[in-house]
Amino acid sequence: MMNTQLVLTEFFKRAETHFSQKQIISRTSETKIHRLTYKDFSLRTKKLAAALEKLGMQRGMKIGTFAWNHHRHLEVYFAVPCSGAVLHTINIRLSPEHIIYIINHAEDEILFVDADLLPLIEAVQSELKTVKIYIIMGDDVDLSQCKLPNAYSYEKLVAEARDDFEFPQDLDENSPAGMCYTSATTGLPKGVVYTHRGIVLHSMILGMVESFGLNERDVTLPIVPMFHVNAWGFPFAAVNYGTTQVLPGPSFTPKLLLELIESEKVTITAGVPTIWLGVLQVLENSERPIDISSLRTVISGGSASPKGLIKAFEQKYNVPFIVGYGMTETSPIVSASNYTSEMDDWSHEEKLEARSTQGAPMSLIDTRIINEDGDVPADGKTMGELIIRGPWVASEYYNDERTKEAFRDGWLYTGDIAVRTPQGFIKITDHTKDLIKSGGKWISSVDLENALMTHDAVFEEAVIAMPHPKWQERP
Amino acid sequence: MMNTQLVLTEFFKRAETHFSQKQIISRTSETKIHRLTYKDFSLRTKKLAAALEKLGMQRGMKIGTFAWNHHRHLEVYFAVPCSGAVLHTINIRLSPEHIIYIINHAEDEILFVDADLLPLIEAVQSELKTVKIYIIMGDDVDLSQCKLPNAYSYEKLVAEARDDFEFPQDLDENSPAGMCYTSATTGLPKGVVYTHRGIVLHSMILGMVESFGLNERDVTLPIVPMFHVNAWGFPFAAVNYGTTQVLPGPSFTPKLLLELIESEKVTITAGVPTIWLGVLQVLENSERPIDISSLRTVISGGSASPKGLIKAFEQKYNVPFIVGYGMTETSPIVSASNYTSEMDDWSHEEKLEARSTQGAPMSLIDTRIINEDGDVPADGKTMGELIIRGPWVASEYYNDERTKEAFRDGWLYTGDIAVRTPQGFIKITDHTKDLIKSGGKWISSVDLENALMTHDAVFEEAVIAMPHPKWQERP
Repeated sequence: MMNTQLVLTEFFKRAETHFSQKQIISRTSETKIHRLTYKDFSLRTKKLAAALEKLGMQRGMKIGTFAWNHHRHLEVYFAVPCSGAVLHTINIRLSPEHIIYIINHAEDEILFVDADLLPLIEAVQSELKTVKIYIIMGDDVDLSQCKLPNAYSYEKLVAEARDDFEFPQDLDENSPAGMCYTSATTGLPKGVVYTHRGIVLHSMILGMVESFGLNERDVTLPIVPMFHVNAWGFPFAAVNYGTTQVLPGPSFTPKLLLELIESEKVTITAGVPTIWLGVLQVLENSERPIDISSLRTVISGGSASPKGLIKAFEQKYNVPFIVGYGMTETSPIVSASNYTSEMDDWSHEEKLEARSTQGAPMSLIDTRIINEDGDVPADGKTMGELIIRGPWVASEYYNDERTKEAFRDGWLYTGDIAVRTPQGFIKITDHTKDLIKSGGKWISSVDLENALMTHDAVFEEAVIAMPHPKWQERP
Repeated sequence: MMNTQLVLTEFFKRAETHFSQKQIISRTSETKIHRLTYKDFSLRTKKLAAALEKLGMQRGMKIGTFAWNHHRHLEVYFAVPCSGAVLHTINIRLSPEHIIYIINHAEDEILFVDADLLPLIEAVQSELKTVKIYIIMGDDVDLSQCKLPNAYSYEKLVAEARDDFEFPQDLDENSPAGMCYTSATTGLPKGVVYTHRGIVLHSMILGMVESFGLNERDVTLPIVPMFHVNAWGFPFAAVNYGTTQVLPGPSFTPKLLLELIESEKVTITAGVPTIWLGVLQVLENSERPIDISSLRTVISGGSASPKGLIKAFEQKYNVPFIVGYGMTETSPIVSASNYTSEMDDWSHEEKLEARSTQGAPMSLIDTRIINEDGDVPADGKTMGELIIRGPWVASEYYNDERTKEAFRDGWLYTGDIAVRTPQGFIKITDHTKDLIKSGGKWISSVDLENALMTHDAVFEEAVIAMPHPKWQERP
């Protein structure tokens, strides 16, 4: 077979060739929606790469972004890795200390910053040891007030760049394309590096029926931030499949999101349960009926989705509500709660139960749930730690001693406690750190909490493990 | 990222773990249908591998199959490559000379033969220089009349093999997994070697919405033979996705195929236009109505599909009829004629035209259509030769000097003449060998033939190029 490398340049070229007239719709502020075609996107991305090259971008150089979900961020998503440099997306919600830590730890040399987020970077700039150049993104950037040294206007750079740039054709699929830091329960964030190969294979999964089936007919709206695990891989995959992309920008109140879904006829959208709870509330209390019938799938992940939420979307609004599972370390998609053919005859209640689990593992992803006795049986009851391997799963933390805790014998130890249902679905029940180990049995703090909450007299609760002379631990 | 290899063992393990209760339905004769679960399949495949190991199977060893589409062939499909040996599927319809040539050229050491095809192999056995062992597949194999030396009964081998065999975990994704010979227009067949990586990536494509969207809910019926480009990749992909598999065996008359589609509720099936013409005829002339409403897609490839055929399936029977394009050298899927969103408002006639083309290239597949002036414009008119590159496209013919004719500068030169439609679809119009080159312009012999055939006075025709002093060639 040909030695064709699995690199993001293939995605970029495909969009350029086959989807030039499809649109990218970017809300750059509460009142402004910017529209460009993939052809514009392609030209601008190559001009951006030309500008970056002129500014000294090198292969392997870390280039940070501190930005919302918008078309410029998407352009950086391709301009940087397709040039062989590394896209480091930075969580804008971190504490100043952690922002300083990860930029210095990654050794970012160029930093893209949204104009409205400038104060956050200006406040820490003096602590940033490696950043030489700042590029400010926005519709009408005025640099006269900018306190950052070596600051450039994104639009000015793009406007002035040469327009005959072409991406290199010799990238290795195992070279780094991106990185993202994950917050640790305690201590400093840990960095994960994504290779071209990992992102390409992950994007192929997103196009498969067994996951979310992204395709050219879709209008995709990733609400999950582009600074968080590549917005679950949506922007990369969307470019490959030529979906119409809707990017919600800095203003994504439930009301504005619903307006976008309605006006742009969004077919598939992804976010955390908190977003969907907010969206549901607006939907139910809206004075006029909001038309969300274009939606073929809502994807929810990041934390457990309450059954009431799933039920409302599926039964009241007739929109399939799929729970996905993953981590920063897994690019992130590991599994999704699509119904299998076996479930066709199930009751609403049984289906809802399946939907609320973390679902079935994707192709090429190996999962095990293990405890002291080895792999747990698929009984939906016996708990163990979920461990994962696969071609888009990290093998280490970037320059971090904590690698050896999480990565052992070729597996990622997630720290999540799960059961395997008889259908092979993963159901997360707890986290190792919260689990109560009582007399050789594991007690799920989540299960106990749920049980407590069903009692009318309980308003709030917290379940913790206490040391016990006989049982080791008791709740 | 983890160095997880893209090997067929991952598919096998997945089916074993997640789809153990799904079924494989195999018609072993006109009157007999055999049913087994993926669990049975998994156990039998591992026992077969154990038996092969005992018989001397080594990594890299070529192992031939001479067989119809059935469950035993499927078991060999996995037992051989998952052990690191190479599955060589042999076209049972070749002339004795070519059968001898390819078995000797591939250096097959073990040969699987269907009992009903034994005479074909017995007739050439004395010429086979490398085959040491013959394994005869069938329901009730009687070896007493078998004229082959070292002949074993498949079922006896499986029954007697140890049941604790496990496949090796250290296969390299770039190692050979299979091979298939393609008939040349003139001369001897040319061998193509498939790697694990190529087959795995090709299988991922088959699960994507942009191609045929195979998934666990499907009931797949590959009519295209398993000895021909891995039945277009269906058996490999089907195991990964856990589809219910229907394998039509040696008896696949249109009537029997329709019975299978109806009784097993087949959702997707693939074959050449000749098959579909036969099926259509039976469908239209059947005394009782035949229910094919379970079908969500018919895939047609191998040669051009007449528009009348497509129209009948789509408009009369409401079954999407998708034309695929590929070659032995391309594993084979290169493109498919799925409608794009742009075509939603098109007339029936325009849609039919799009459907009858070779369609849009798949993800990760690069296609160019080139003539003396470089890449042809996407005008649906200008002809050029179709050239292809991608991770499941061969880079050479196996030990064959003709490699240098077809593989140049990293591209496969298909010899097919095509145009690019404004939608980016590939439309094959001719073959380089039949094209008429007149005064610097290319004239499609196919177009001329089609035009001639529309005249009532023409019963048969043939268009060829004649040398011409002024125009070089004229039709």
